[in-house]
Amino acid sequence: MARINSHYLKLAAGYLFPEIGRRTRAFQEANTSAELIRLGIGDVVLPLPDSVREAMKRAVDEMGTRKGFRGYPPDQGYDFLRDAIIEHDYKARGIQMAPDEIFVSDGSKCDSGAIQEIFDASASLGIPDPVYPVYIDTNVMAGRTGRPDDSGRYAGVHYLDSVEANGFLPKLPDESVDLVYLCFPNNPTGSVATTSDLQRWVDWARSNDSILLFDAAYEAYITDDSIPHSIFEIPGARECSIEFRSYSKNVGFTGVRCGYVALPRELRGRADDSSDVEIHSLWARRHATKFNGVSYPVQAGAVAAYTGEGQNEVRGNVRYYLENARVIREGLTKLGFTTFAGVNAPYIWLKTPEGLGSWEFFDALLERAHVVGTPGAGFGACGEGYFRLSAFGFREQIEAAIDRIQKSF
Amino acid sequence: MARINSHYLKLAAGYLFPEIGRRTRAFQEANTSAELIRLGIGDVVLPLPDSVREAMKRAVDEMGTRKGFRGYPPDQGYDFLRDAIIEHDYKARGIQMAPDEIFVSDGSKCDSGAIQEIFDASASLGIPDPVYPVYIDTNVMAGRTGRPDDSGRYAGVHYLDSVEANGFLPKLPDESVDLVYLCFPNNPTGSVATTSDLQRWVDWARSNDSILLFDAAYEAYITDDSIPHSIFEIPGARECSIEFRSYSKNVGFTGVRCGYVALPRELRGRADDSSDVEIHSLWARRHATKFNGVSYPVQAGAVAAYTGEGQNEVRGNVRYYLENARVIREGLTKLGFTTFAGVNAPYIWLKTPEGLGSWEFFDALLERAHVVGTPGAGFGACGEGYFRLSAFGFREQIEAAIDRIQKSF
Repeated sequence: MARINSHYLKLAAGYLFPEIGRRTRAFQEANTSAELIRLGIGDVVLPLPDSVREAMKRAVDEMGTRKGFRGYPPDQGYDFLRDAIIEHDYKARGIQMAPDEIFVSDGSKCDSGAIQEIFDASASLGIPDPVYPVYIDTNVMAGRTGRPDDSGRYAGVHYLDSVEANGFLPKLPDESVDLVYLCFPNNPTGSVATTSDLQRWVDWARSNDSILLFDAAYEAYITDDSIPHSIFEIPGARECSIEFRSYSKNVGFTGVRCGYVALPRELRGRADDSSDVEIHSLWARRHATKFNGVSYPVQAGAVAAYTGEGQNEVRGNVRYYLENARVIREGLTKLGFTTFAGVNAPYIWLKTPEGLGSWEFFDALLERAHVVGTPGAGFGACGEGYFRLSAFGFREQIEAAIDRIQKSF
Repeated sequence: MARINSHYLKLAAGYLFPEIGRRTRAFQEANTSAELIRLGIGDVVLPLPDSVREAMKRAVDEMGTRKGFRGYPPDQGYDFLRDAIIEHDYKARGIQMAPDEIFVSDGSKCDSGAIQEIFDASASLGIPDPVYPVYIDTNVMAGRTGRPDDSGRYAGVHYLDSVEANGFLPKLPDESVDLVYLCFPNNPTGSVATTSDLQRWVDWARSNDSILLFDAAYEAYITDDSIPHSIFEIPGARECSIEFRSYSKNVGFTGVRCGYVALPRELRGRADDSSDVEIHSLWARRHATKFNGVSYPVQAGAVAAYTGEGQNEVRGNVRYYLENARVIREGLTKLGFTTFAGVNAPYIWLKTPEGLGSWEFFDALLERAHVVGTPGAGFGACGEGYFRLSAFGFREQIEAAIDRIQKSF
């Protein structure tokens, strides 16, 4: 029989979100009249901006003409989109970045999952706890870890504890690791990193020959002007960082699928024969060989989000979700919950009440208030005793959820 | 410095199509007035069908409403698309397949490149020569091969020669291999496999515990009713096969990006601990972890291609390209070229004239006729002395190309 990749068998039983789905469905089936409010998975709800939709439809119509039809997209994305990215996401913040350092993709989950492929199977990993599960699971699949222990931690991984005591900002690793995954504003804790926090990481990475894999999917939610939106705002970051960007949570593209990777030419790694290799060329080769570009109407929609009208609509949606976050944060604080974040992030991280474990609170919240959230423990051992509520919902649902929680806890 | 995946350094210098692009650009720059006709990369040119465009635009408009907005797509694709696939691509041909055995994706290149990830790093490979480069390159990247020899063949791969003497249908391997890549109608040779050819492969795979990775991207071009469109028309295939399907060459989705994998529950593999594992669960886990679903408007477009109107439009486009193939085939035959295929496939495979090598003929064709094709040697050592012309072009270009070749050779 064909030999399978046995590393897959090390993976903890289920991906977090399917388990939430399973418990939610079971509850709904047993309580058919209950109207659930879902603040779990972190999926946007507001309609696509008009400017984006109009651009997408125009692109579809172009594809209906002999002259306007477009076949295989360029591997790294259309120039029109990469130029807009450089202009708005980098140049406008004083960051040097070239269009050929941008790799347009079908989303950050795919990119942050695939990036490990261009590194050695023995590359060592620094992974925050709690964390977005994709970073760790894709490395388990690639064989970079041993089996998990009872808390779900995999052998051989250097975990970076993000706990209340350190303000959910992990300490620098006390040993050298090849790859460190960072995400700010953070999913799930909603914590942010200041310029000096990030400068410490960049300095550490450069003196330890490490690479920072920086997920900036939530940068649009930063309200504090002093917080960097990109790792590349930090001097020296071009020598040690890869950045992941997404249109999911700002333009509302969770169902449309587009994002990009920014990967500077300066970044280098070491081959088996000790030669020094440009990481950019490896990712370019991976992108050209295992990916085939992003749908033209989708790229046309993404670029429309950078126009004046598009920016206004995007900012309006972000403000709406941030106001939701305020409603949740203030509502829960008034009820005596200990909450974190929700100011520069669309997530509220909270301490579970009544001494409940994360999954116990998940079940209690579902049963008593008919509200679905995300158990902190699902993001890692350090998430036990914590819980994530997402601000992605309609205002009236958010208000109803707080009202129900008030009556139930 | 972070250790890179050194297997990437084994890859032969460039992916075939970028090299074609490089030579073409160089010629165009030196001959600015030359009007090139591109029959190289195999990219469709006809506008997207009306029914598909209308469905895509309706889907974009739905996303502009609170009720119609859709966030994260289901991992394996929307039910509406998977149900249509089962109905039209399988049930209509008498094939048993369940919706949960279908994995909708952003295209066959990604799927056929990623499928190897769920198998062991030591899995042995049977790969046709000539072949679509993605099958081999993704395995080189994953470390399943040694270095290439002078002909570009990688050590450790069991190559399956597809040559004139065997009608471009490789013999069964004379030893057991874990994974065999097959593609019919074939890219690049345009050859097809009959029911009895495929039955031999299925029987061989079952008695050798091998898995057939069957790429059916060109099935819409089959004109001979006796030729199977799916490996699953063959009894026993569910126990040994994975099928890749694409909307690129029938619906014209090279620039829209959609395809799918059909992976039956019966398929099993062996883990390190000798346990017997369902391959379906591995691919489902890979899909859920490293992929995030296909854009809703794209899936809405794909399903529209299965309606009565959609099928008429798709069939009309396929007939147009097949007529192009006939023009090329008959035109070249009249000029004394030895040609193959172009009846059940959109490709014409031809013997290079005047004793020229594949790349020499590429350059001669470009210089003398201003026509861009694909050198057979770019697909593997057995392709040397052969050349691929694609039928994907406008009729007048195809006719002009034949006319120019007549004047130049």
